[in-house]
Amino acid sequence: MRTFYSEDHRLHFPQAELSGGEFVTPFERPSRVEYVLNRLRERGLSDIMAPRPVDMAPIRTLLDPGYLCFLETAWEEWKREGMAGEIIAANVPARGMHLDRIPTNIDGKVGYYCHASETAITSGTWAAALSSAACAQSALGHVAAGADAAFALCRPPGHHATADQYGGYCFINNAAVVAQMFRDKGAARVAILDIDFHHGNGTQNLFYDRDDVLFASLHGAPQEAYPYFLGYADETGIGKGDGLNLNYPMTAGTGYGAWAAALDDAIGKITAWGADALVISLGVDAYKDDPISFFKLDSDDFTNAGRRIGRMKLPTVFCMEGGYAIEAVGINTVNVLEGFKDI
Amino acid sequence: MRTFYSEDHRLHFPQAELSGGEFVTPFERPSRVEYVLNRLRERGLSDIMAPRPVDMAPIRTLLDPGYLCFLETAWEEWKREGMAGEIIAANVPARGMHLDRIPTNIDGKVGYYCHASETAITSGTWAAALSSAACAQSALGHVAAGADAAFALCRPPGHHATADQYGGYCFINNAAVVAQMFRDKGAARVAILDIDFHHGNGTQNLFYDRDDVLFASLHGAPQEAYPYFLGYADETGIGKGDGLNLNYPMTAGTGYGAWAAALDDAIGKITAWGADALVISLGVDAYKDDPISFFKLDSDDFTNAGRRIGRMKLPTVFCMEGGYAIEAVGINTVNVLEGFKDI
Ligand SMILES: [Zn+2]
Ligand SMILES: [Zn+2]
Repeated sequence: MRTFYSEDHRLHFPQAELSGGEFVTPFERPSRVEYVLNRLRERGLSDIMAPRPVDMAPIRTLLDPGYLCFLETAWEEWKREGMAGEIIAANVPARGMHLDRIPTNIDGKVGYYCHASETAITSGTWAAALSSAACAQSALGHVAAGADAAFALCRPPGHHATADQYGGYCFINNAAVVAQMFRDKGAARVAILDIDFHHGNGTQNLFYDRDDVLFASLHGAPQEAYPYFLGYADETGIGKGDGLNLNYPMTAGTGYGAWAAALDDAIGKITAWGADALVISLGVDAYKDDPISFFKLDSDDFTNAGRRIGRMKLPTVFCMEGGYAIEAVGINTVNVLEGFKDI
Repeated sequence: MRTFYSEDHRLHFPQAELSGGEFVTPFERPSRVEYVLNRLRERGLSDIMAPRPVDMAPIRTLLDPGYLCFLETAWEEWKREGMAGEIIAANVPARGMHLDRIPTNIDGKVGYYCHASETAITSGTWAAALSSAACAQSALGHVAAGADAAFALCRPPGHHATADQYGGYCFINNAAVVAQMFRDKGAARVAILDIDFHHGNGTQNLFYDRDDVLFASLHGAPQEAYPYFLGYADETGIGKGDGLNLNYPMTAGTGYGAWAAALDDAIGKITAWGADALVISLGVDAYKDDPISFFKLDSDDFTNAGRRIGRMKLPTVFCMEGGYAIEAVGINTVNVLEGFKDI
């Protein structure tokens, strides 16, 4: 399986993540990707290519133009206003406030376009986000050209980003862009299966009312886990999309038995629905030693999960999402890919 | 005019405020109050009393019980979960998320009950917030017993706090508690006039659908100033309260001429409505040198504003809100009170 990877991910390296009332070194850091690269090479999966330049057209079609403009110019505007630190949102449109009025002030705009304050924007964030999307697009191109599957080693990740909000370390929703491009290239029905520990709120949000993209997510129950305010089982889609949003929230301590049962249920529904193409939001923070998650998967479980996904025999693009147990991120990610190939 | 003041405000002294992507020493700090006290004494306004113990009954009636329970227990729960820093919200219910589901996890609960991440909760915040409310209640009691007016030297301030959200340095909405207690003691119509530089979003929110409490606020336009997502002129109240919410958003650089015209308009409407009692949200951050605001009032303007307010000849409770140009806070606050007496 070919991997698409860009060194430009390093342009995004915030020094600060708001966590537990302190600034800590971000869990989502460049070294995560190095561990995956090393493991790919160690296992002989060394067909690793740089992506083609990003194609903005499908991104502009799927996402909000004002949001993209904001991401591109926020750092410059923030610095021009004399802000000393990285961009971190302090005020978002909260309950009881207007959810649809965009401030002109940069501090206010940051709040409007953000849904969580742990995620910083720095000088290189926009370039890195575009390089991440480029990896996803090139992986899609590879599969559209006939490959069974491809792996986009995306960083920053994407599944928490909506059409007009960043947060949860995510800026451009790579998996969503791939799903839309699958559609644009002729797939009638595209499924996105999100196995990251955290609910893919951005992806859900983007396709919630659509009947051509099914979204399924296995994740920590929102009562107990970020993003807290989305990811409940009763979020099943709306309008034409009703029934095509499948959330599997699971509680703290969930092990592979219950997790795999949810995975099989999602796979069964994706198969029954008749998906033509598959996008995997490949986070590996369901791992037992992940520092910010609470599932209990072992490394072998990721191989097994990959195998189950492979049995769908669909054209598949894997997009890297989260996973923060730094050393194990490489092993667990590559285990999914090896399991997938090993059906 | 009697002042009510409690030393317990010192129990709330966060070390960190999220501002410009950094932690800075909070602008809302204990010394603010010392400057007001010193100035009161310097000007011979030394009738300064400690408040009676807080009366929880009116607070429990006006505010959300779950919110009060959260404020009381948040610090203990935060520390029990091993959080290292002060309580600072990282995730609030954002656009596109559930606005009505409360997480069980303390990090999630903090987000639910917060509308801005600049405001930290510490071990002493609840006690300080209660002492602040106690000052407001004692000032109300003093006026209800026959005094023309009283000054509650509240800290922390209150006008940004809603029935179930803290933020903007505010936890319990003191002015709103006073307005409700005026009503409970027989005033048919109570007006709250908020001259703090920032929109009193919490107060607006609490009385938005009521016809017995009028709210008027002079403040920096929300497009340009915190709280960014509330405070527009077209927010006029709803249902029975329609027409009884008066917002006067003004742009950067506004001086006393335009500001006083807005004040006079608000005073005219309060008078025409036939208010029986008045609560002043007394922030002095409209001052020209305030570090986080952008109006251009001089110290003498505050005397003049107090004089205009005094001409309403209503039983009046002043509740201290913001004002961060530390030394001038004392002068400007006392100028309002002296102007009020000097009609
Ligand atoms: Zn994750
Ligand atoms: Zn203020």
